[in-house]
Amino acid sequence: MLITSENNDLIKKIKKLKDKKGRYEEGMFFVEGTTNVLEALKSDFEIEYIVMGEGVKIDIPKGDFEIVHTTERIFKKISDTVTPQMVMAIIKIPKYVENTYIKEKGVYVIADNIQDPGNLGTIIRTADAFGVSAIFTINNCVDVFNPKVLRASMGSIFHIPVIAATSQILLKLKQRGIKVFATYLKAQKLVHECNISDKVAFVLGNEAKGVSVVDLVDDFVKIPMTGEAESLNVSIAASIFLYESQRQRLIKNN
Amino acid sequence: MLITSENNDLIKKIKKLKDKKGRYEEGMFFVEGTTNVLEALKSDFEIEYIVMGEGVKIDIPKGDFEIVHTTERIFKKISDTVTPQMVMAIIKIPKYVENTYIKEKGVYVIADNIQDPGNLGTIIRTADAFGVSAIFTINNCVDVFNPKVLRASMGSIFHIPVIAATSQILLKLKQRGIKVFATYLKAQKLVHECNISDKVAFVLGNEAKGVSVVDLVDDFVKIPMTGEAESLNVSIAASIFLYESQRQRLIKNN
Repeated sequence: MLITSENNDLIKKIKKLKDKKGRYEEGMFFVEGTTNVLEALKSDFEIEYIVMGEGVKIDIPKGDFEIVHTTERIFKKISDTVTPQMVMAIIKIPKYVENTYIKEKGVYVIADNIQDPGNLGTIIRTADAFGVSAIFTINNCVDVFNPKVLRASMGSIFHIPVIAATSQILLKLKQRGIKVFATYLKAQKLVHECNISDKVAFVLGNEAKGVSVVDLVDDFVKIPMTGEAESLNVSIAASIFLYESQRQRLIKNN
Repeated sequence: MLITSENNDLIKKIKKLKDKKGRYEEGMFFVEGTTNVLEALKSDFEIEYIVMGEGVKIDIPKGDFEIVHTTERIFKKISDTVTPQMVMAIIKIPKYVENTYIKEKGVYVIADNIQDPGNLGTIIRTADAFGVSAIFTINNCVDVFNPKVLRASMGSIFHIPVIAATSQILLKLKQRGIKVFATYLKAQKLVHECNISDKVAFVLGNEAKGVSVVDLVDDFVKIPMTGEAESLNVSIAASIFLYESQRQRLIKNN
């Protein structure tokens, strides 16, 4: 099918998915580009449509979704990028059951009111690389299905559950014996001096205001900085904690 | 002085500074926001002008520069942000003498054709935090004085030299006994298994194409990834190398 009118119902629906309100009203989101679409196809996510530019040919494995084409002009209007790759997947927002992802071991990330989509996307990509069990977003964090988050996450949302939760999630993790960490510039302990190999959750605070759930944190650690910069970008702090945790696991298992 | 015309020579000059060509023609760049401007004032950089919005009052220490005001409408035209903080400093591009910054010890970063301004800015901020000696940009890397690089660097370019160079810089570093590292997904050695505490340079490659100066790299290391993500963002890879180097220094000196 080739859609040539902007008034087509599917086109109007996709346009709504750029905004959080529209995404949750429709229960859907989209990803763009060949890599992301192929990652989506390999995953358990339910794909509703694959939309391609007119004349675009990509080998798409058969599945329970509809493949539609539209003109380059219309594709540019539904895309979130300036120079779209002319392929997108329209996907159902997954219904994660929070409790399924809380175990008595593993490494967890809590994104506490992270506002920059690039930061959240990079955190998801890094958490995926280091084998994190689940990411929970709390306190009005930027929506994980925001197109800019998805772009920075480079397909990792199809590998790792990212679940919208409340700060209660921290209590649930603590009840299972998971220790909750956060960074603090004036903390006494350095991150590599703490055992963070497993059974840990790491809270990442808002870019300007820091961690809001201070009372729920079990231990504060410091990333050793010797230069003049006063702080690190939140996705950088996350990567250092997750790398250090990974390094400790490798040494323990050797 | 209050500038009310867009045809004012200074305003026309500042507008040119948004583009690399204009910056190097004028030999100047600008930073925006109170934090950046105050960091610039504390540094050795030569400030030519401080430009503020009409009615904006900020305590600026005395110095060899001119303070000018302009209307909000004109400020918005010279600013690189959508909601400007209404203060900027116009600064001379420093003339770094490359050889001054090559020593027989220290940690160096080589940004090899990094294209995303946010990535380079974050790398500069992180390198500053971990006490890196100098950053060299090679092979058509995004310009360090690009407003988006400066925004992400959070004032760190006033603490750490970032020097435009050629790949010859690697030969010079190697002659001084500095060992050149890069990451490689198929490398045998993990980053924490190598001694990278000092006398190391770390090459960061282009976001899509990777490292171009492969022949000049002494050793390839792998960041231990156990998840499904195939790679890390380049600023994340940088932060892990620099953190690991810092951790090793702390342990050695303890």
